[in-house]
Amino acid sequence: MHSVEPASPGDYPLLIGQLLANLPQFAEQEIVSEGQRFTYDTFARRIHRLAHLLTGMGVKPGMVVAVMDWDSHRYLEAYFAVPMMGAVLQTVNVRLAPAQIAFTLRQTGAQLLIHHADFAELVAGIMPALSPAPQFIAVEGYEAGLAVAPDEDFAFPLLDENSLATRFHTTGTSGDPKAVGFTHRQLVLHTMALAGTLANQPYGEGFRRGDVYMPMTPMFHVHAWGMPYLATMMGAKQVYPGRYEPARLLALQREEGVTFSHCVPTILRMLLDAIPPEAPPLPRWTMIIGGSALHEDLRRQALERGIVALGGYGMSETGPVVAVSRSEGARSDPALLCRAGYPVPLVWVRSDTDGPHELQFRAPWLTRDYNGDPAASRDLWREGWLHTQDVGAIGPDGAITIADRMKDMIKSGGEWVSSLALEALCLTHPALAEVAVIGMPDQRWGERPVLFAVPLDATVPPDIAEIRTLLQPAVEAGAISRYALPDRLIAIKSLPRTSVGKIDKKRLKAFLKDDQVIPKKR
Amino acid sequence: MHSVEPASPGDYPLLIGQLLANLPQFAEQEIVSEGQRFTYDTFARRIHRLAHLLTGMGVKPGMVVAVMDWDSHRYLEAYFAVPMMGAVLQTVNVRLAPAQIAFTLRQTGAQLLIHHADFAELVAGIMPALSPAPQFIAVEGYEAGLAVAPDEDFAFPLLDENSLATRFHTTGTSGDPKAVGFTHRQLVLHTMALAGTLANQPYGEGFRRGDVYMPMTPMFHVHAWGMPYLATMMGAKQVYPGRYEPARLLALQREEGVTFSHCVPTILRMLLDAIPPEAPPLPRWTMIIGGSALHEDLRRQALERGIVALGGYGMSETGPVVAVSRSEGARSDPALLCRAGYPVPLVWVRSDTDGPHELQFRAPWLTRDYNGDPAASRDLWREGWLHTQDVGAIGPDGAITIADRMKDMIKSGGEWVSSLALEALCLTHPALAEVAVIGMPDQRWGERPVLFAVPLDATVPPDIAEIRTLLQPAVEAGAISRYALPDRLIAIKSLPRTSVGKIDKKRLKAFLKDDQVIPKKR
Repeated sequence: MHSVEPASPGDYPLLIGQLLANLPQFAEQEIVSEGQRFTYDTFARRIHRLAHLLTGMGVKPGMVVAVMDWDSHRYLEAYFAVPMMGAVLQTVNVRLAPAQIAFTLRQTGAQLLIHHADFAELVAGIMPALSPAPQFIAVEGYEAGLAVAPDEDFAFPLLDENSLATRFHTTGTSGDPKAVGFTHRQLVLHTMALAGTLANQPYGEGFRRGDVYMPMTPMFHVHAWGMPYLATMMGAKQVYPGRYEPARLLALQREEGVTFSHCVPTILRMLLDAIPPEAPPLPRWTMIIGGSALHEDLRRQALERGIVALGGYGMSETGPVVAVSRSEGARSDPALLCRAGYPVPLVWVRSDTDGPHELQFRAPWLTRDYNGDPAASRDLWREGWLHTQDVGAIGPDGAITIADRMKDMIKSGGEWVSSLALEALCLTHPALAEVAVIGMPDQRWGERPVLFAVPLDATVPPDIAEIRTLLQPAVEAGAISRYALPDRLIAIKSLPRTSVGKIDKKRLKAFLKDDQVIPKKR
Repeated sequence: MHSVEPASPGDYPLLIGQLLANLPQFAEQEIVSEGQRFTYDTFARRIHRLAHLLTGMGVKPGMVVAVMDWDSHRYLEAYFAVPMMGAVLQTVNVRLAPAQIAFTLRQTGAQLLIHHADFAELVAGIMPALSPAPQFIAVEGYEAGLAVAPDEDFAFPLLDENSLATRFHTTGTSGDPKAVGFTHRQLVLHTMALAGTLANQPYGEGFRRGDVYMPMTPMFHVHAWGMPYLATMMGAKQVYPGRYEPARLLALQREEGVTFSHCVPTILRMLLDAIPPEAPPLPRWTMIIGGSALHEDLRRQALERGIVALGGYGMSETGPVVAVSRSEGARSDPALLCRAGYPVPLVWVRSDTDGPHELQFRAPWLTRDYNGDPAASRDLWREGWLHTQDVGAIGPDGAITIADRMKDMIKSGGEWVSSLALEALCLTHPALAEVAVIGMPDQRWGERPVLFAVPLDATVPPDIAEIRTLLQPAVEAGAISRYALPDRLIAIKSLPRTSVGKIDKKRLKAFLKDDQVIPKKR
């Protein structure tokens, strides 16, 4: 692994390959995937072989190489080799509908597709919708190709650090998926900021040398929060768990000594449900929770099992990490760990003072645009700040609290009501497993909150009067407006979810409009 | 403190002002200097006032503002305000001879000089040698100026991140001092790499949130190793000790709870000598040691006092930090903490395979040139690598060990002898306080090592036969060549030192040549 030749003395572009500069310090460290163990040294050699293989198949700088895979060593190799060649890595969201996947591949013009056998049928099915159809490599071809690729250093080119390195699509909860993109420079700076942030967390909340990493937000989703790049730069042991199955995740944690992961609340919930009640607490396992709000109940239940869960904040457009929680001051109030957290180094945040307090950011690693959508891009970057469409507050200590998505805020009786705040309160009812609050148009009040509730026991759903009684103290304390009290409760078996596990409020709204039965999704 | 307006959506130059993005998180944290306490909030407001003051005095982007001060809050303010205005901060080495100081000010064309009262006479003395003479502000004028400066935000300009931020001169052990320079981008990246490195060190060897910082390498010397920028970005409590006096440094450590410092071995030696033998161990105090080799004896003596000393590596040309030691594997061999250490993130190192193994680096924060000296600049950057003129080895674990400065290597009987290795061995003699080994030209052997030795008791210097006996086992073990055994010992009262406390081998060589008495310098 050689550093690229600079164009002039002292010139040093921020390229993904530069994250490998310290590799001689941990050449024997392990990467675990699909029951195999690779040293970092082998990993580095496989990066070179992959670059030879892709070049042999015609991949050139600027071309798009798409990947459809579960979390694996292959994905990690592609995270490095593809951008290092000057090509663009497209991480395909395999949970989208086939037509949407075809849409995203058409939109980027992907010329090569590396896919897992599990997606062979899906790939065959969408090929007719792609023109020209990309070449593709299945897992077997990937291994065979690496085996015959030259075992010599690939001459990785000296790139402009502003070259595009990755592309992927937002989940498209409102309309078609939108393509964001990140440059080499942005990913290196994101990695450096994460390093300074997570190593600086108190012991048990951070990620440091000696920790063992396993992703639990998929590698197709916003670079698995950038952690594979950080773990590689730091030389941490890495464990790639394939398709997420709670039993396998728990087994890998125990067997490989995993100490650091990240996931959405749904995955954490699944993990906790999969642990037998009589099982002893897990060894220390830190998890950054993002994607949706971390509720205090879930955090506490996780801690009882040995899992230190703490909130973070980011989105596809932000690379993703812009804030992480930490426990300073949280001894007296553990709920502080459930916030979106403190902005990480180099991140500026402001809250829109007009309107419902949208959070807006500046940082060196935010997507510059939505590819091919100049109107949405302009809207994203109004006044030079990235608009999150998240409503929130910046506390006196600088920490961010998210109130809600702007579109999920409910305006009733002229006051803004946060659906997230309401949901957190409703969830304290002992008979409820999951809830979602939706605003329903109302002639008199503008909107009225409606509570969708998944009871723990489907035969005895709570009634709306109980819920209003439960919320009354919060109204009296001024924590929520009296307009926030829902006057309708709809008991359902499960909540519809998006491809990345978030509650699909668009479908709940459509249900209210059409008054149709919600189809069961799990 | 507002982030600067970007030129285009998503554009985010790496500027020193961006290190202040997280400031709202620690607005009440303290900066201690000259018996005063400033909050970070006050510090930020003083930066704005300083920018107003300097602008009022005619400072414009591109101009050079020089500072001659002891370590103080003023210096910290200048570290930020001057580059943030687009001007260049010249940190003047106040230990140089007046003529050399005049030389460095002339060379940069400094147009404004901020100086401490202690340097008023010196400044008055060199003014005639400067043409046009710069304006100057003494400390009193500085405070008075800040007091009357507008208390409103200064509109810091959006700069090119490749703008020069700082300039200073190497110590000029060989010829006139040479000017190096660092850009905004370089200093931000150096800060980010330091953050990831030092927070990642095991507890007791690192620098994390909650640590208290006090410099003990002067702020005029390579940005005090970049630590003031890091401490400020992280929001650590900072303690600026003025002129270094061992008793005051010790008192500040105790009173302010200092946990992290950095210094050259000479300062550490002075500190240890100033601690009364009966004093209890200090509370945990971590020190990165650079500038010269950290000897195991000194490290152990420091540890007995509660000071965790560990080696780092860098030089004026490298910003400075490119490597830091850490204790992995050091439990069995504490000497590992005395090495130059492990390259920090983004740093590539190689060792010249022809010749005496000079260490060469690539990193995003190395000076691009010696200002006004294209020949030396070309020599510094041969083949696109920065040439350190340090001879060293890169171990199988990736850690760097420095053997010697190239010019201090001794070639005897056709073999290279490291003066540093010899010195470390000689120092194990119980009667010696300090030593230096110099190569003396020799017709038969090329060069022969000569030992300069400072005995603990001047009345009983050891003789050369004792030293040779002491070294014999190392020869037999193959650790040093038999040509390394010195055959001459010169006892002296003290070693001559350069302006930054390094042993001045040039003067020792001159002494050998002229056979003159070394003038006493302490």
